Amino acid sequence: MKAEIISIGDELLIGQVINTNQAFIAEKLNSIGISISRMTTVGDEEQAIIESFAEALDTSDLVLVTGGLGPTHDDITRRAVCKFFGTDLVVNDEALQRVRGFFERRGIIPKKINEDQALVPRDCNVIQNNHGTAPGFFFERDGRYLLAMPGVPFEMKAMVEGFVLPYFAKRATGFVIQHRTLKTTGIGESFLAEQIGDVNVLFKPGDGITLAFLPGSTGTRLRITVRTRSTAEAQLKIEQVEKAIRSKAGKYIYASDEEDLEQVVGKLLLERHLTLAVAESCTGGLISDRITNVPGSSNYFDRSYVTYSNDAKLVDLGVPAAFILEHGAVSREVAKAMAMGVRLKSNTDIGLSTTGIAGPTGGSIEKPVGLVWVGYSDRSDTLAIQFTLGDERRRIKERAAQAALELLRRKLLRVDF
Amino acid sequence: MKAEIISIGDELLIGQVINTNQAFIAEKLNSIGISISRMTTVGDEEQAIIESFAEALDTSDLVLVTGGLGPTHDDITRRAVCKFFGTDLVVNDEALQRVRGFFERRGIIPKKINEDQALVPRDCNVIQNNHGTAPGFFFERDGRYLLAMPGVPFEMKAMVEGFVLPYFAKRATGFVIQHRTLKTTGIGESFLAEQIGDVNVLFKPGDGITLAFLPGSTGTRLRITVRTRSTAEAQLKIEQVEKAIRSKAGKYIYASDEEDLEQVVGKLLLERHLTLAVAESCTGGLISDRITNVPGSSNYFDRSYVTYSNDAKLVDLGVPAAFILEHGAVSREVAKAMAMGVRLKSNTDIGLSTTGIAGPTGGSIEKPVGLVWVGYSDRSDTLAIQFTLGDERRRIKERAAQAALELLRRKLLRVDF
Repeated sequence: MKAEIISIGDELLIGQVINTNQAFIAEKLNSIGISISRMTTVGDEEQAIIESFAEALDTSDLVLVTGGLGPTHDDITRRAVCKFFGTDLVVNDEALQRVRGFFERRGIIPKKINEDQALVPRDCNVIQNNHGTAPGFFFERDGRYLLAMPGVPFEMKAMVEGFVLPYFAKRATGFVIQHRTLKTTGIGESFLAEQIGDVNVLFKPGDGITLAFLPGSTGTRLRITVRTRSTAEAQLKIEQVEKAIRSKAGKYIYASDEEDLEQVVGKLLLERHLTLAVAESCTGGLISDRITNVPGSSNYFDRSYVTYSNDAKLVDLGVPAAFILEHGAVSREVAKAMAMGVRLKSNTDIGLSTTGIAGPTGGSIEKPVGLVWVGYSDRSDTLAIQFTLGDERRRIKERAAQAALELLRRKLLRVDF
Repeated sequence: MKAEIISIGDELLIGQVINTNQAFIAEKLNSIGISISRMTTVGDEEQAIIESFAEALDTSDLVLVTGGLGPTHDDITRRAVCKFFGTDLVVNDEALQRVRGFFERRGIIPKKINEDQALVPRDCNVIQNNHGTAPGFFFERDGRYLLAMPGVPFEMKAMVEGFVLPYFAKRATGFVIQHRTLKTTGIGESFLAEQIGDVNVLFKPGDGITLAFLPGSTGTRLRITVRTRSTAEAQLKIEQVEKAIRSKAGKYIYASDEEDLEQVVGKLLLERHLTLAVAESCTGGLISDRITNVPGSSNYFDRSYVTYSNDAKLVDLGVPAAFILEHGAVSREVAKAMAMGVRLKSNTDIGLSTTGIAGPTGGSIEKPVGLVWVGYSDRSDTLAIQFTLGDERRRIKERAAQAALELLRRKLLRVDF
């Protein structure tokens, strides 16, 4: 089964929004054996939209359309679909109930343009929207499908996972393409490549297996892709390659696929019945934000102090004023005192801390922008490690938060840093 | 002048890479008056590439192609271009010198596949690559252009800025396209549309002005687009429309274009010589993270407490235990006590707080997931406002952080909430 993705929206054509929907849909369809032959982006213009439908249905079995289903005047996908299939809009009762419920739960009375979201092309198959007001829908004509979804990523994603994948998995025949991503941090891309060595030793080239290095600002992801006839065979091959990679560079791999470092660390803390408190200076709350993104984090995360001012470091964490005077706020001594201070103050098992120079100002020759100390303290050990993390404020914060969580992971697993 | 962007690469069709090149090119071309009529992505397949060239040149004056110029077997754009224009590949001497120099500087002897990067279609115009080995090139046929660049973002960006923009700015005799984005929060898309009313009253339809509503999880952006003959005229029209919109919905607009709410709030605090401390429960550090993303925030941001446990609320903020017992941790009383507590504890001018149920568990009929209280306290006023912010953990955090910063903005500007 071949598919084409059509994205609709002027915001895409003027470059205001980066299109992340296409990659998401492509990867998901690949996983059920549907390959993408083309992706097209057109603006909020009826003629262009209709032409793109005609062209796509000419060559593809499945055309997935996103965007242009909203309530305002510039959302014209539904009208274009009606024109294309020679039909008109009718109210879908269930969608209308959902729109009303959506607003009711928020204590708002819906307006006519809200209720108009329940309009769908006559005779289409409706896909209800569990996260917003505009339903999706599809038509089947001569075994070919045109399916429209909202462009809002989380509404679209829920429809793809809840409806599109199960529905078309039954109808797709062909190759299965599966991926696994191993996430590494604390090692540069080229050093990681060197650790892993010649990939042709790991797997036979031309065996339907590829390995991609995807560097990012807080680590490099390794993507294993396998293309085979069956899911079972794909799983087996992926596991073989993963095992080989882990034997070479296992200590740098903190998670796989969708899992995040904060989830991994959370699981470890929960398993070990340990509690955590954090003292953040240069990371400014980012570590705590990441930790509390995990549902149930209140079971192990007690509190954190974002001690931006020196006074806060003294009063809230009990950092000795002499340490700051002698060594500066960005120093091994202060990082250690912060980690131990937050642990004792909060009466938790572990304390974690950061202090550094996020820039753009505040750097010196001795202590340049990007210098960060990460501290760790438990009942038996208190230490701090120095990092140099680049020269851009947000990236420094992100890398420092990543380094702190990775230090915690390795301490919990007794892996050296 | 109308343009189409064609992206080539299997990595895009399988969703392994998010296409950021299209948005970059679109925005840059817009700035010199070239509008994008379509974006297309095809795989590493000769026939599909050639067809995309033919279709694009049929409707556009300028076709910008990225990707498929690398040294490996799957990079076939040059071959496809040769076939399309009925020509063959020849060595470009300057490109060859550059390839050799590129490897020499790295102390490596280039291989044949590296030197083959200097091959370009005969009779093309070459665009040298200052950041990599594959040159770009273009053909002109009957006043229409097909231009190919590498897909590696920083190599492509350098060619766009160094060559494409200056070259085509002279040739784009058409319209200047300018945008302004007004960012709103605290009002739903449809209610905003109602506030603004009939857009045809704001500006004459067909006057080269369009207004788009772009909803996001923390607010709706309003994008004004103007297409005119001159930059001065565009500026004037944008300002007129902006003024009209502000007169209708000004209080919801917190920033324009690239500016973020944390920057706006930071500027206001700085101007007024006011200091801020934050007490976060359900937002888990996100407010502090956003505030400290702004360079120089240490001038007004003193500290924050992420008081996830009740104990932390009592000890660090002095919230009376009786409040938590009587009203629960998620209540007006606790939000107010947190905001006042953090202000007094930190000795700042303003205290801000959040307490809510981020889910997925912890909700009840009386206090469902998504219920959030945002508190504010200064020397003369302490208050809290209730919000219901959906049912997904991360979005609840994002919306609560946005609501807190927006409450602060309106208090600083004495705009009612």
